[in-house]
Amino acid sequence: MRRLYAFPLSPYCRKVRLALAEKGLSVDLIEIRPWDRAHELVSKNPAAETPVLVEEDGTVVVDSGAICEYLEEVYPDHPLLPRHAAERAEVRRLVAWFDVKFRADVTENILTEKVIRRLKRDGEPDSAFIRVGAANLRNHLEYIAMLADQRNWLAGSALTLADFAAAGHLSCLDYMGAVKWDEFPSAKHWYQRIKSRPAFRAILSDHLPGLPPAAHYGDLDF
Amino acid sequence: MRRLYAFPLSPYCRKVRLALAEKGLSVDLIEIRPWDRAHELVSKNPAAETPVLVEEDGTVVVDSGAICEYLEEVYPDHPLLPRHAAERAEVRRLVAWFDVKFRADVTENILTEKVIRRLKRDGEPDSAFIRVGAANLRNHLEYIAMLADQRNWLAGSALTLADFAAAGHLSCLDYMGAVKWDEFPSAKHWYQRIKSRPAFRAILSDHLPGLPPAAHYGDLDF
Repeated sequence: MRRLYAFPLSPYCRKVRLALAEKGLSVDLIEIRPWDRAHELVSKNPAAETPVLVEEDGTVVVDSGAICEYLEEVYPDHPLLPRHAAERAEVRRLVAWFDVKFRADVTENILTEKVIRRLKRDGEPDSAFIRVGAANLRNHLEYIAMLADQRNWLAGSALTLADFAAAGHLSCLDYMGAVKWDEFPSAKHWYQRIKSRPAFRAILSDHLPGLPPAAHYGDLDF
Repeated sequence: MRRLYAFPLSPYCRKVRLALAEKGLSVDLIEIRPWDRAHELVSKNPAAETPVLVEEDGTVVVDSGAICEYLEEVYPDHPLLPRHAAERAEVRRLVAWFDVKFRADVTENILTEKVIRRLKRDGEPDSAFIRVGAANLRNHLEYIAMLADQRNWLAGSALTLADFAAAGHLSCLDYMGAVKWDEFPSAKHWYQRIKSRPAFRAILSDHLPGLPPAAHYGDLDF
């Protein structure tokens, strides 16, 4: 069976899990906390980061971006990239927008402080970072709402990796109850649509011991 | 004419310039300092980051990773990705290694402190960061040396985007004289080979006003 080494509240692992599920590819999830630097992980990825995909034939694929491109090349059914180069570039721009900029602006400030610090037992969360993250999140929700108003999905007419990159980050923040959806109805409407997909089910049933999700986290009608 | 909005000492812009040159694609370089947030840049890329590629037909491509994949798709001659999916994934793993991990471990600590801070007139460089960056650089040079000992180029038998990603970062650090090549002969040998390619010429003649390159920077025999 295909295996994915993953930390449940990693936006990058979630992006890959969504891509696998959307393509109908089953996978055994091996839960791992990257900061433990387990030999099992480091021997496959010297960067000691999740996600790492191990195919049935033993092929190891490292890095969420590389995994998504690999899945697209090897399993082209249910494509998550459009056909034309310029449209593919727009998807990749948005994936980088979420995985680099949104991460630095929001995810690092909120998720790292509220969750990772706690799980690593690395002191108390710093509320200054959390406030900065929350302010940046508003700007990003406005941007998502703008895209959702102009397009069927974030990068264009079809569901793509850009939606999964965004949903990876936002679903982790939503687990913590950190997203004020009602203030951004167009962003909420986009998230409702993606949350309702069968590919999302496994993510909505994630539950970290000692760190339960916000009450509305699993609701499709939130 | 094709245009590239670029900051000369950005590793990401250098990766794209190397890919363009290796493919024999000519380009007008428009020098830009992203922190000035010029309308010319922000109107094309809301993230206000270089590089941004503008094709002759007006197609705008944003983000260095998206640009390289786009170039590979639209101009497949002189390929910079191998043919097989698992080998392509190894290239992309290494591109992420340099563009995410090397950046955080080394480039941010040295280049941001020594160069960007100075150009932005944002206080004095912090020597603690520079020391951390230098220590991390040694580990990364060891990793590069190990790859160069095992493989013809960093990701395998052929020159790929992984070499250009690495060379983008290292050539910026080398501009500052921050790389002790003689301690890592295999890494040096790899850098000599890539530095000797015609695609590297334009980068070796970069010269920032008020911030001249280290004496050996342009030498092929360093």
